[in-house]
Amino acid sequence: MTSKSKVVRVGNVLIGGENAISVQSMTKTDTRDSSSTIDEILRLEDAGCEIIRVAVPDMEASESLKNIKKAVHIPVVADIHFDPRLAIESIKNGVDKIRLNPSNIKDKEWIKAIASLGKERHVAIRVGANLGSFNNRPDNIEQALVDSAIDEVRLLEEVDFEDIVVSIKTSDVLMTVLANEHLSKLTNYPIHLGITEAGPLEDSLIKSSVGIGKLLLEGIGDTIRFSITGDPVFEVRAGFTLLKSLGLRRKGLEVISCPVCGRTEIDVLGMVNRVKETFQNVKRPMKVAVMGCVVNGPGEAADADVGIAGGKNSGVIFRKGKIVRVVHGQNLLGALMEEINNFLEKNNDN
Amino acid sequence: MTSKSKVVRVGNVLIGGENAISVQSMTKTDTRDSSSTIDEILRLEDAGCEIIRVAVPDMEASESLKNIKKAVHIPVVADIHFDPRLAIESIKNGVDKIRLNPSNIKDKEWIKAIASLGKERHVAIRVGANLGSFNNRPDNIEQALVDSAIDEVRLLEEVDFEDIVVSIKTSDVLMTVLANEHLSKLTNYPIHLGITEAGPLEDSLIKSSVGIGKLLLEGIGDTIRFSITGDPVFEVRAGFTLLKSLGLRRKGLEVISCPVCGRTEIDVLGMVNRVKETFQNVKRPMKVAVMGCVVNGPGEAADADVGIAGGKNSGVIFRKGKIVRVVHGQNLLGALMEEINNFLEKNNDN
Repeated sequence: MTSKSKVVRVGNVLIGGENAISVQSMTKTDTRDSSSTIDEILRLEDAGCEIIRVAVPDMEASESLKNIKKAVHIPVVADIHFDPRLAIESIKNGVDKIRLNPSNIKDKEWIKAIASLGKERHVAIRVGANLGSFNNRPDNIEQALVDSAIDEVRLLEEVDFEDIVVSIKTSDVLMTVLANEHLSKLTNYPIHLGITEAGPLEDSLIKSSVGIGKLLLEGIGDTIRFSITGDPVFEVRAGFTLLKSLGLRRKGLEVISCPVCGRTEIDVLGMVNRVKETFQNVKRPMKVAVMGCVVNGPGEAADADVGIAGGKNSGVIFRKGKIVRVVHGQNLLGALMEEINNFLEKNNDN
Repeated sequence: MTSKSKVVRVGNVLIGGENAISVQSMTKTDTRDSSSTIDEILRLEDAGCEIIRVAVPDMEASESLKNIKKAVHIPVVADIHFDPRLAIESIKNGVDKIRLNPSNIKDKEWIKAIASLGKERHVAIRVGANLGSFNNRPDNIEQALVDSAIDEVRLLEEVDFEDIVVSIKTSDVLMTVLANEHLSKLTNYPIHLGITEAGPLEDSLIKSSVGIGKLLLEGIGDTIRFSITGDPVFEVRAGFTLLKSLGLRRKGLEVISCPVCGRTEIDVLGMVNRVKETFQNVKRPMKVAVMGCVVNGPGEAADADVGIAGGKNSGVIFRKGKIVRVVHGQNLLGALMEEINNFLEKNNDN
């Protein structure tokens, strides 16, 4: 539904309602190795990650959560499958949220026991349905996924548990979109969006962006995760880039750059890479444009805070579409960097 | 409009109507250097590119089109700005389509002259509006873009020219979506979709996928281009990956792979990369799944033609969700490759 969802607290992050759509990731380390896992989470925090999930496949991993919780600054979610005792232990060990898969933990008494302990300790639960454990594919898969999620939500409500987030993910974009559209009509708990098993970087960015983006544009979704076979830092960056491109978050650097063509007079990609490297941790919203020639120059990028358009052995620097400087000779990159720094100085970014 | 668009012929490719949505790219070489430009186009053909655009900023570039046309096998589009004589020369030199930017060629008599010659030589015209040459941003930008495109379409129609493709691109996803939704209500010429100046690889994949994908899901769009600051082969690959993910094309390899987490027992990314490298040129549709553990194993990827799910020093190979082989020891990759080759052999792929 496009009406506002409920608000659920997960550690120091609020999901749902009018709150900013949060960006999540999941560690790829062995959770039992708390030191590597902590390092990865700290790296993800630097990239802006707001909620982190870790796999908890056994008791040793659950035990490791104690160390992890002490060392990190963002809410930790324990990803639980098959064994409900791992959920109980993870709650005791201090996690902020539990993810349960309704298709592989079905015992109602165990689910209620997890919810009761969760309620006592203010731990949220994500009901995370996927196709993982349908032994036989039902005829109407979307319906079956929605039913399995909603059935578990009702079960949690039976013990007055309401700190619920719901998700339905599949590796199929259209199926995931349909299932979430349906889900959103049946519940107003916050919805966590993602395309699962979306593949390596390029594949996942494409499938996740269209799937998650389509739903966000319909007003569906309160928190997102890009699943990428690769460094989880990509997942976090991608999340923010998508949200920024849809006007749903404003944060840090946004790059506008032409694709380069036979008209290009300058090293667009080199300049873009240097700008991204140098200013990737800027906190304030800032749009920088790098355009290869005058065709799309200042006009196409008129809303850029700082931009450059190349010419023959020269270039123009512009701000909000107005040319502020003409640069001759080779040091276009130096001039652009200088103007970006000037912009940041005037706008008090540290 | 979701009703079918007209069909426009561009060389040996039909755009619009019931025809498959085609994937375009643009060369990044200096068009005057026909040898480099031809090499790049041949590389793009190998990647599946169906229509290629080249910048024609001067008469020497236009002259170069003769050589290019002789050497390549896909339709060539001349990208023209500012100077209408370049359009006339490009048509004479054999291109299949001209792209005109309504905001920088405004002389009506010249536009009609281009259309008349285009009609005679069966050359299509794309009316490609963008923000490049609005000196002052109008209050309602979407409306201004739509007006400028439609005005030029009407002008072409005045000389009975109807082999028209229309595009409106901006670097802003929401603006581009709105403008194209509006445009599609006013014309049924085929629409070319893209987000322009979308930035380097990651940024562009995200912005382009959500922008183009959202419109395609509404039934808008007949041909697409991803604009990426980087190798144009990425643009072609991305185009097909998006279309496949929306069920709009079926072609070649599709990879489903888990994002890796603390449960993972095998080298998922290594295996995915090897599968992609080895089978990237397969023509028949084939889904391959690489899953790190049993949680999402065969179930989540039940529609994969061939898949593997890792376990402790072992793995299972499955086809369409049914386990066909258990592999012990280290050579999981070898076993997966063997099964993919078996699948292809049975299904007659060369």
